[in-house]
Amino acid sequence: MRLRCLWIGETKKTPFAGLEAEYLDRIRRFVPISVATVPEMRKVDPRKRVSQENKETRLLEKKIDAKSFLVVLDETGKEFTSVGFAELLENLMNRSGPEVVFLGGGHAGIPRALVDRSDLRVSLSRLTLPHELARVVLLEQIYRSLSIIRGLPYHR
Amino acid sequence: MRLRCLWIGETKKTPFAGLEAEYLDRIRRFVPISVATVPEMRKVDPRKRVSQENKETRLLEKKIDAKSFLVVLDETGKEFTSVGFAELLENLMNRSGPEVVFLGGGHAGIPRALVDRSDLRVSLSRLTLPHELARVVLLEQIYRSLSIIRGLPYHR
Repeated sequence: MRLRCLWIGETKKTPFAGLEAEYLDRIRRFVPISVATVPEMRKVDPRKRVSQENKETRLLEKKIDAKSFLVVLDETGKEFTSVGFAELLENLMNRSGPEVVFLGGGHAGIPRALVDRSDLRVSLSRLTLPHELARVVLLEQIYRSLSIIRGLPYHR
Repeated sequence: MRLRCLWIGETKKTPFAGLEAEYLDRIRRFVPISVATVPEMRKVDPRKRVSQENKETRLLEKKIDAKSFLVVLDETGKEFTSVGFAELLENLMNRSGPEVVFLGGGHAGIPRALVDRSDLRVSLSRLTLPHELARVVLLEQIYRSLSIIRGLPYHR
């Protein structure tokens, strides 16, 4: 089972982009993982917000195979310990289906329609994190999970 | 009231150090904050571990004024929402006393004696975070808190 990250809005060329690349490289020592991005909705006239969100939703849906397991990062989602997250990932990777998709929002979060159709909502912290920092935390946890699953000493 | 971060082990020159510096700069637009570091205990012969930890504890205690409010980052600590953390910080800054110290551990965490004498244990996430990433999350939350306290639009 492949892993795939789907981001709303590119990670800007700050230190966050460097950390993302580093954790992606580390994850790839264990499993294939890809990153795809859809353009982030600009701040628009509030009256046009619904049609903009619908457009964003269509773009995202095109990139998510109907058989994929869709995980969304959502503040109201379930919180995991690292060991619990590793168990989740191990179960997902043993499941049939083409891939596990982790969807990370932009400034405006994730369109409601995608949250509703997701298979799991995950909250990384009760704290509100900037979306680019949340991506780093997610990728680090995926790497940590893989090292837990393989019994490597990264996670003590 | 001043803010002070006390780290066990320097943040290495990775992207983490850059993010720390960035959030420190942003925090300083609002309040004075300083960072001090004590050397990290090396991996030692387990029989010498206790004496090493005692030495580390003494070094840390020298840097913490007895009247300071000591917050330690600890996985078993209390979890906050960002608004809750902002309320905490506002209360602490209105309190008398020289400073609020945020103590962030290294690879081996924080010596038990310091956890015991702390005024508050804070957990940033149920997930285990690398200590350098935890420092970034803490500083971002301090900045976010200050922007919440001032009513600025950073936190939506």
